[in-house]
Amino acid sequence: MLDASDPAGSPPLQPGQVLARGVARHLRDHDFACLEEFVPERGLRMDLLAVGPKGELWCIECKSCRADFTSDGKWEGYLPFADRFFFAVDCDFPTEILPDAAGLIIGDGFGAEVVRMPEAMPVATARRRKLTHRFARVAAQRLHRMRDPMGMLL
Amino acid sequence: MLDASDPAGSPPLQPGQVLARGVARHLRDHDFACLEEFVPERGLRMDLLAVGPKGELWCIECKSCRADFTSDGKWEGYLPFADRFFFAVDCDFPTEILPDAAGLIIGDGFGAEVVRMPEAMPVATARRRKLTHRFARVAAQRLHRMRDPMGMLL
Repeated sequence: MLDASDPAGSPPLQPGQVLARGVARHLRDHDFACLEEFVPERGLRMDLLAVGPKGELWCIECKSCRADFTSDGKWEGYLPFADRFFFAVDCDFPTEILPDAAGLIIGDGFGAEVVRMPEAMPVATARRRKLTHRFARVAAQRLHRMRDPMGMLL
Repeated sequence: MLDASDPAGSPPLQPGQVLARGVARHLRDHDFACLEEFVPERGLRMDLLAVGPKGELWCIECKSCRADFTSDGKWEGYLPFADRFFFAVDCDFPTEILPDAAGLIIGDGFGAEVVRMPEAMPVATARRRKLTHRFARVAAQRLHRMRDPMGMLL
């Protein structure tokens, strides 16, 4: 059980969100900028999309338990939207059930580590441009909402 | 004098920042995602850079008074980094001193309006890609810092 409450006093995070927080901290330390719950296109929602200093796009799906993985029929749909794809799990997760071709990150709410780097499968140029543009707008809009919440009441 | 305090209880905003808030609210209503104090490259700092739904890049410099404009020797340096360039001022500003070729936005801390749309001077493709990528990363990093402030103490 992860024990890492949200310092901002928001509702408690779900286990997958706690894990996403630790993963995002780790990736930030490696100069990747992360966005949670990013929708690359309608019907898909990535747990994390990270943009690297050279434009790299890494998708990370956070799995809190075996059932969370086995019930997920969508993850392969994310592959065309990232140069590298990772599963992130905690140290109790049965990692042998995860596909070898995917990257593997082990972590908790405080941090994480990349334990298997997947091969890069570069995103097509037009799609990369579109994804980066969407990422830029979503990140700025969320930031704006946090910085100027009163502006949203209008 | 503008009278629009920051609802989040942060330090009082400077007049230019108050204006930037109103401009950002207006642009958001037109589906532009705004980032304040964006550095397109070393030595330059835009008051606002806004990214539109089609990838448009609009730069807005907020001028709180005549001296704020006349003492600014940098604004022409921003032109190559945006498809359209605007000055934003409040309704007491002597707008006749502003260059006609620049766009003009009149506003206050609560909102704004585009009163002169400048001609578009499209940013070069490679630079657009680089700016959008930088915007994406800066926005996500600032959002991350607000959402997970404890993660920054490490």
